[in-house]
Amino acid sequence: MENNGVKAVEALFNPRRMAIVGASANLGKWGNIIPNNILRDGYKGELYLVNPRGGEIKGIPFHRSLAEIGKDIDLAMITIPAERVEGVMEDCARAGVKVAIVISGGFSESSPEGRAMEESLVRKARSLGIRLVGPNTMGITSAPWSLTALMPPVQPRPGHVAFAAQSGNLGTQMLGWGSYRGIGFSRFVCIGNECDLDFADYLEYFARDEETRAILLYVEGFKRPRRILELAKEITPRKPIVIYKAGGTGAGSRAAASHSAAMAGSREIYRGMIRQAGMIRAETTEEMLDFADALVKLPVARGRRTAILSWGGGWAVVAADLCERAGLDVNPLPAQVKEELASILPSYWSKGNPVDMVGILDLDKHVRCLEILSQCPEYDAVVSLGTINAAGAFGLAGGEAESELLGEMEKARRFYVQQRSANFARRVVELMEEQGKPIVTVGMPQRDADSNNLSGYPWDRISIYTNPERAARVAAMLAERGEYLRSIAAREA
Amino acid sequence: MENNGVKAVEALFNPRRMAIVGASANLGKWGNIIPNNILRDGYKGELYLVNPRGGEIKGIPFHRSLAEIGKDIDLAMITIPAERVEGVMEDCARAGVKVAIVISGGFSESSPEGRAMEESLVRKARSLGIRLVGPNTMGITSAPWSLTALMPPVQPRPGHVAFAAQSGNLGTQMLGWGSYRGIGFSRFVCIGNECDLDFADYLEYFARDEETRAILLYVEGFKRPRRILELAKEITPRKPIVIYKAGGTGAGSRAAASHSAAMAGSREIYRGMIRQAGMIRAETTEEMLDFADALVKLPVARGRRTAILSWGGGWAVVAADLCERAGLDVNPLPAQVKEELASILPSYWSKGNPVDMVGILDLDKHVRCLEILSQCPEYDAVVSLGTINAAGAFGLAGGEAESELLGEMEKARRFYVQQRSANFARRVVELMEEQGKPIVTVGMPQRDADSNNLSGYPWDRISIYTNPERAARVAAMLAERGEYLRSIAAREA
Repeated sequence: MENNGVKAVEALFNPRRMAIVGASANLGKWGNIIPNNILRDGYKGELYLVNPRGGEIKGIPFHRSLAEIGKDIDLAMITIPAERVEGVMEDCARAGVKVAIVISGGFSESSPEGRAMEESLVRKARSLGIRLVGPNTMGITSAPWSLTALMPPVQPRPGHVAFAAQSGNLGTQMLGWGSYRGIGFSRFVCIGNECDLDFADYLEYFARDEETRAILLYVEGFKRPRRILELAKEITPRKPIVIYKAGGTGAGSRAAASHSAAMAGSREIYRGMIRQAGMIRAETTEEMLDFADALVKLPVARGRRTAILSWGGGWAVVAADLCERAGLDVNPLPAQVKEELASILPSYWSKGNPVDMVGILDLDKHVRCLEILSQCPEYDAVVSLGTINAAGAFGLAGGEAESELLGEMEKARRFYVQQRSANFARRVVELMEEQGKPIVTVGMPQRDADSNNLSGYPWDRISIYTNPERAARVAAMLAERGEYLRSIAAREA
Repeated sequence: MENNGVKAVEALFNPRRMAIVGASANLGKWGNIIPNNILRDGYKGELYLVNPRGGEIKGIPFHRSLAEIGKDIDLAMITIPAERVEGVMEDCARAGVKVAIVISGGFSESSPEGRAMEESLVRKARSLGIRLVGPNTMGITSAPWSLTALMPPVQPRPGHVAFAAQSGNLGTQMLGWGSYRGIGFSRFVCIGNECDLDFADYLEYFARDEETRAILLYVEGFKRPRRILELAKEITPRKPIVIYKAGGTGAGSRAAASHSAAMAGSREIYRGMIRQAGMIRAETTEEMLDFADALVKLPVARGRRTAILSWGGGWAVVAADLCERAGLDVNPLPAQVKEELASILPSYWSKGNPVDMVGILDLDKHVRCLEILSQCPEYDAVVSLGTINAAGAFGLAGGEAESELLGEMEKARRFYVQQRSANFARRVVELMEEQGKPIVTVGMPQRDADSNNLSGYPWDRISIYTNPERAARVAAMLAERGEYLRSIAAREA
């Protein structure tokens, strides 16, 4: 019990000293690429590089062995060929290593001999009190330590989503996609073959981790489904867990068996388990990020009553359909709200929910409308379309060349739109805080529509979606999360 | 019958001479913005500007009246206030105008008086042999004439999708989103209030138009649903029609009634009609573009047997699930294919469909695998993941600053990936032509993942999706379109 799973995971994500066993001076080798990624992002602990033949990377000389370092090492990252991994376990133990990440492939994922080698490695490590991540993993990241111990050249953004992925390519690409969209991660682990530490261990740690406000799982199959169910039931009343369960179909589960040796299990069984544990199911890969991000940045909704605010009529119609289809109530406007809006908008506004602002260019009026809807006690959430990154639609975001063709007047107009649109974004954040209600925003579809490249925006506090489909799904998810939390509170009262 | 609907639409999209009635020298007025948009994109016909008070835009002097032009005008675009529109109809008639686009709002969409004014305008125009687009429209575009007669600063890309939209904000933003994604349009019309020319007229013209290879409709409600059904039945065996039907829910249809005065009709009735007519239903706004674009660029599938090729295992699992869920058959690999692939891939490849290329960096082997799957007579389509715009994932697309930190070796590696990835894209196009089968490609999620900003790609011939969800839906749509065409052929044989 001394080095139990969650303690090992704690060392994994908070290593004061780590060593790369198999460091290489040869460009293109993983033993070279991984240390370079770690150095690029400025790991706050001490990094040691080990290779018996010597060498250096960026001025850091290699040690001939772990013993030569002469200090206790928390984390070893092993990039040497599979056959030799077991052989360095004793050195690791002598250096005080608590957990080792085995990057190397060629174990159970590749052949029966590989499987035997993996089993032998686990026995050896366990006997020495060392816990293992992988093998066949692309690595980990840990934001508080600025640690990017990954194979691909992805630069994750620091934030509050913890992510455990049963796929290196999918997991690391999600990190990269998140950086682009302004979605940050507290911790990431590519679980690899799960020979030792598994989903349950990571989950248990994420639950306790103060840096983590939402948990994201990409799962092909669980090794210990009962333990996961038990843990998830404990965690979800306090911290949301978003799960994408892959391999639910015939072809998908055959693929999962080949990819991660996971017993994918039937779709229905997993769905039942997800529901029972209060986890949130993402139906698409895009939704994994949409949901996790919204749960970090937006409050949950107190109910399903949703007001829709749109710059134009077509998007208003589409959003109304999609919100209803997602299970939200697009209730009529209360008389008082109708009156207030009528005093702001032109006579030909929609006079109903969705509120169609009929294209008015005065963005300060957009803010006023948003305030009225957000402050109305008869709505639990607002979906807002068109205003949030209006600037981009006027050619401001992507640096379109046409700008030199513009007259001064047009330039002034665009500057105004950019400024007022950023102001709208800031008010979205303030109103969410004041009212404790989510405001889900859809920008104009355009270049970089969901990226964080517009200046003056409170990127750590808003989520922008490129289309109303995604916004409606997020708003519905936040309503369901609210219902779940209330049902738990009622049960406990 | 002389100036019937389809003839008027022909004049609308092929105007040798057009006049803006209500041209303005004042920046910020629509009568100034629209001519500037037209001049920016280099309209190939003759543009005349009319304003009784005189003035000029970019060196084009205003005429005091249509009569002063002294030439026959095909198309008039009217930007003067609603009350005065009817008053210029006689001038239009004398100048030979066949069709007039009434940009002005303030008609039936805004008040009962506006409705009366609109009805009176239509009577007047009809009596003079003039057909009307709008009122309350954002305009039209026509690629063969390089004509961008629009209110917003959108620059559409020329191509082969014809698009009629019952919403200006949604329609024009789709054009802009299309430009970014490399999706081109032959013709576009924002139908406005449909006081005269309606969906049926535009549809009839698009069917005959040689520039148009796929038709896209954004519909809140049809004025002449029977005529549409009749026309669509005739058209869909030759040209695909993609339709997004908005306003199907309670809130959505109330919003549609307020927005376009459309009787949205029940979702079931419209679904029945869409199916009966062989139209293709887009379920999201994103799908409108995905489907229309694929139908222009990709061949339809001869069946549902789908091979999946993936650079990595996680995406392979996800894609297999999504393809099966979309109704495709992810059949096992034939023995011969398995043997051929085994001779190329490392021993630990997936040995099944999906084909997981287990991360190998030799992109020429990716091409070889694609060829084998595409040439196999037991597959009707290929979904390919990860290779197509691999370059972006290595920091090449977005011009990430980190590149200066790279060594020469890493730069060379990235250059190689960029070159080979573009080569893969070219082979995708060649194989589709050779084999007459669709290859639906998913790029790495990254900055600009579905934009057309990578050089060396045959952008007019491929569609790249940012996630496997979209690719699976497109592949299934192409299989359904193939089935529909075969059922028609069988019926006619």
